[in-house]
Amino acid sequence: MVSSLRLPALTSLFSPSFTRRSTVSLRRRLHLRPPLAAGFSAQSAASSPTETEDRVDSKKSGRVQDRGSTDRVITPRSQDFNAWYLDVIANAELADYGPVRGTMVIRPYGYAMWEAIQDYLNVKFKETGHSNMYFPQFIPYSFIEKEASHVEGFSPELALVTIGGGKELEEKLVVRPTSETIVNHMFTQWIHSYRDLPLMINQWANVTRWEMRTKPFVRTLEFLWQEGHTAHATLEEAEKEALQMIDVYTKFAYEQAAIPVIAGRKSKVETFAGADKTYTIEAMMGDRKALQAGTSHNLGQNFSRAFGTQFTDENGLRQHVWQTSWAISTRFVGGIIMTHGDDAGLMLPPRIAPIQVVIVPIWKKVDEKTGVLDAASSVAETLKNAGLKVKLDDTDQRTPGWKFNFWEMKGVPLRIEIGPRDVSSGTVVISRRDIPGKQGKVFGISMEPSILEAYVKDRLDEIQSSLLQRAISFRDSNIVDVSSYEELKEAISLGKWARGPWSASDADELRIKEETGATIRCFPFKQPQGTKACLMTGKPADEVAIFAKSY
Amino acid sequence: MVSSLRLPALTSLFSPSFTRRSTVSLRRRLHLRPPLAAGFSAQSAASSPTETEDRVDSKKSGRVQDRGSTDRVITPRSQDFNAWYLDVIANAELADYGPVRGTMVIRPYGYAMWEAIQDYLNVKFKETGHSNMYFPQFIPYSFIEKEASHVEGFSPELALVTIGGGKELEEKLVVRPTSETIVNHMFTQWIHSYRDLPLMINQWANVTRWEMRTKPFVRTLEFLWQEGHTAHATLEEAEKEALQMIDVYTKFAYEQAAIPVIAGRKSKVETFAGADKTYTIEAMMGDRKALQAGTSHNLGQNFSRAFGTQFTDENGLRQHVWQTSWAISTRFVGGIIMTHGDDAGLMLPPRIAPIQVVIVPIWKKVDEKTGVLDAASSVAETLKNAGLKVKLDDTDQRTPGWKFNFWEMKGVPLRIEIGPRDVSSGTVVISRRDIPGKQGKVFGISMEPSILEAYVKDRLDEIQSSLLQRAISFRDSNIVDVSSYEELKEAISLGKWARGPWSASDADELRIKEETGATIRCFPFKQPQGTKACLMTGKPADEVAIFAKSY
Repeated sequence: MVSSLRLPALTSLFSPSFTRRSTVSLRRRLHLRPPLAAGFSAQSAASSPTETEDRVDSKKSGRVQDRGSTDRVITPRSQDFNAWYLDVIANAELADYGPVRGTMVIRPYGYAMWEAIQDYLNVKFKETGHSNMYFPQFIPYSFIEKEASHVEGFSPELALVTIGGGKELEEKLVVRPTSETIVNHMFTQWIHSYRDLPLMINQWANVTRWEMRTKPFVRTLEFLWQEGHTAHATLEEAEKEALQMIDVYTKFAYEQAAIPVIAGRKSKVETFAGADKTYTIEAMMGDRKALQAGTSHNLGQNFSRAFGTQFTDENGLRQHVWQTSWAISTRFVGGIIMTHGDDAGLMLPPRIAPIQVVIVPIWKKVDEKTGVLDAASSVAETLKNAGLKVKLDDTDQRTPGWKFNFWEMKGVPLRIEIGPRDVSSGTVVISRRDIPGKQGKVFGISMEPSILEAYVKDRLDEIQSSLLQRAISFRDSNIVDVSSYEELKEAISLGKWARGPWSASDADELRIKEETGATIRCFPFKQPQGTKACLMTGKPADEVAIFAKSY
Repeated sequence: MVSSLRLPALTSLFSPSFTRRSTVSLRRRLHLRPPLAAGFSAQSAASSPTETEDRVDSKKSGRVQDRGSTDRVITPRSQDFNAWYLDVIANAELADYGPVRGTMVIRPYGYAMWEAIQDYLNVKFKETGHSNMYFPQFIPYSFIEKEASHVEGFSPELALVTIGGGKELEEKLVVRPTSETIVNHMFTQWIHSYRDLPLMINQWANVTRWEMRTKPFVRTLEFLWQEGHTAHATLEEAEKEALQMIDVYTKFAYEQAAIPVIAGRKSKVETFAGADKTYTIEAMMGDRKALQAGTSHNLGQNFSRAFGTQFTDENGLRQHVWQTSWAISTRFVGGIIMTHGDDAGLMLPPRIAPIQVVIVPIWKKVDEKTGVLDAASSVAETLKNAGLKVKLDDTDQRTPGWKFNFWEMKGVPLRIEIGPRDVSSGTVVISRRDIPGKQGKVFGISMEPSILEAYVKDRLDEIQSSLLQRAISFRDSNIVDVSSYEELKEAISLGKWARGPWSASDADELRIKEETGATIRCFPFKQPQGTKACLMTGKPADEVAIFAKSY
């Protein structure tokens, strides 16, 4: 078995329906703009959950002619970031909206990105001692009420099952928004002595939160995630675990997704409902809004006290366990799109890309075709055997130019072109997605397997680190150090992140949110030395906080 | 990345809580027998979904002393198969019951079996051209009503969400019992021309069916499965796909799970609600009841007509697509338990086993300990490097005898024992789970890595095929060829499967069910030559059917 274990058979991902979709999408946008956003958030929660007319329209329209180019249908990023995002998702066939308001169908190309995330994290979770398991998604309503701040945080967002097997249920069932309550209910049965600790588990699951404003990947009524849950004998151990897992997420973001997140601690106001401390990784999107991309909570004894999750310690005394929980969701796919994409569409870091290299054979005369296709197949075989994810686009229904645009829009990191002259000289042309035009194009790379493999792998590594470096530069040039509320307001009004000393009250924090739309994203782990003056009160502040508008 | 990609870190699977659990389980059984069955089915569907007293009891009981042996708590299989099954699930920590009636928590050891199933099938699905994706689990109620026999089959089993975000919904939402309806809703938007076909996808997901009589793994209110959905331009292609996928399942059952299923076609009465044809794999459990272990449906145009899923063919004509769907669920884990287990507990085929080899170091004097543990670690390392799933049980809180029983109960295929004398001679003792006592024990196997690795792999292969052969013999000695209804009744009353020519009516089939409890499990693909006389009517019958009682 290979590293692509959970990746789809890529040859089946790409139907020729793209052009139709794009054009329909374009047409839809002209009439109904923005179509995906409309489907996701325009309807009120209590209104009919189905929407069909749009679909019937697009179905009736049938097949539309090839336009010869694909980039026209994507709104320029600088013009309207949200429209650009929705266009990319539609055109790259990452997701579609489901029939129920705010739900999302994750299509194969988008799901393959999620599988790349799963493959990496699943290994890391096991390496750090966690076991996968599965808890039921239906939770008795009474469980949710047991932890005071938890119920306050989640009750407005619950989906409730009230009828089962044709009968009204005596107790409503909550469709899990998260599993701390049912996890604790089970932990009480599995944990008895200190020898049962630590108990460290994870599940990959769907969760439901009845969100009012939704957006594909970023915030959907149902989403996929992993949720880790652990129980420990001491506060120190739980704290160490919570920090370890935010570190796993941070490394994943930097090394795999090429997203230079800022890791830190949430303010009390922004802490998870039921946690003592929440750690977070915050990512700067292309529009400079912050995306909370993963969280890890030190739950203290809040749930263990509410549920009576106790153990007998080494001295024979009964103690409540100390717990953590941590999660990353399909929202991360949205983060990858919004970090790296450009006007041409998606731009994927090689370690996340469902296709790392696309091969486009080019011929004009019929007698050139066989030689070119043979060489292209052989190159594809070479790179597949080297463990790379390769797509050979050998259809003759599209021009090479159309294919170039299409695969750029799909964010494939490297393109290999092979024409008759390349076949004669035993070489190929290689283009980088991250460097547009001629600058990113290199001619005359040998087809000789060992040379080609090494060259391609080196370029993929370069692209991976180049995307990260670019995102770091962008992030750092958009964070402003501020020392007063006036400076903070100015930074936020320019769309930037503001970083400044903070020791003011929760009320002050909420006032900033009200007046500027920005919230404290985190107190970063990396702090400047020394005590400074709080930007709001002028009183001593031990830490700087980062303020930003967020998704 | 290795083949154990989705397996938990096994070292964290085994808490020392086993003995307590077993004893509690035993005690529970004395008072409340059968405890797991009670939790799963005794409560009525409309009664309060929570049950807690039992849990509080077990929690209060605290830690119980080591009994020195584990096998006593498992009811002998021959005495009460159902109690044996529930005891194995509890003692081997495969699953526990959730707080809502009929729901199940899949614990790490049980989940690792499901992961082994996933790992194999996921690769096969991709090799056969399918892509993974994800559909929302909430389906508008109106969708379910569109296909007449589908609604008839599923409406009694639905869980309905009626409240979302604190408000009564205008249209009730169905928590998916299966996804044909929402899949078709989306397919209408993705399929336009023959060039969009075949469309072949799969999802790994949870599904909900409000079952009245539940049993862990075999039938639970919520379960995990994969569901494949495909759309084709012709009936022939759809038929070929449906057959291909039942063949994938059959190979999986034989080659991985060592379960000699009988593959065939369902009778009209037993066909899936909404399908033209249902293919099935039927497995004989240890109590000789049949388990439907996987199905593949040729859906014809039933859903495409109900949803208007059409394409334009090569002649420009609009046609409805031809579809299939196919699924295997966590029920399969129950099938593995009930096929191979014995009075000592689980017996796992090596290709499914979360742990293939357990190493038990044995020492009496303190000065022996280091040498024995060093050798054991080195053996463990050798076998892990060879790609095997290995557990070194080096705790000193348990005696070797206790460990032998424990790991036998957990179904680990091979045990390696290493004592001081083995260290001196550079050898180990190896015991097979499938051959009890001295017969299964071989002394003096060299520790030399290449010799040991080859020996262990050979033994695992032998066990894998020995379990299959044993199950084939058991199956074949419990199928009776019958030529009359009297003979059929006798076979069924003896607990066996009856195989006989059948061309009678649906009414006759239902009468047999009423009078004997047996149903037609399938018309096997492998048929005897020639026309025979129907066992019920004496009229010509082209096929034999298999009748059996089933889960």
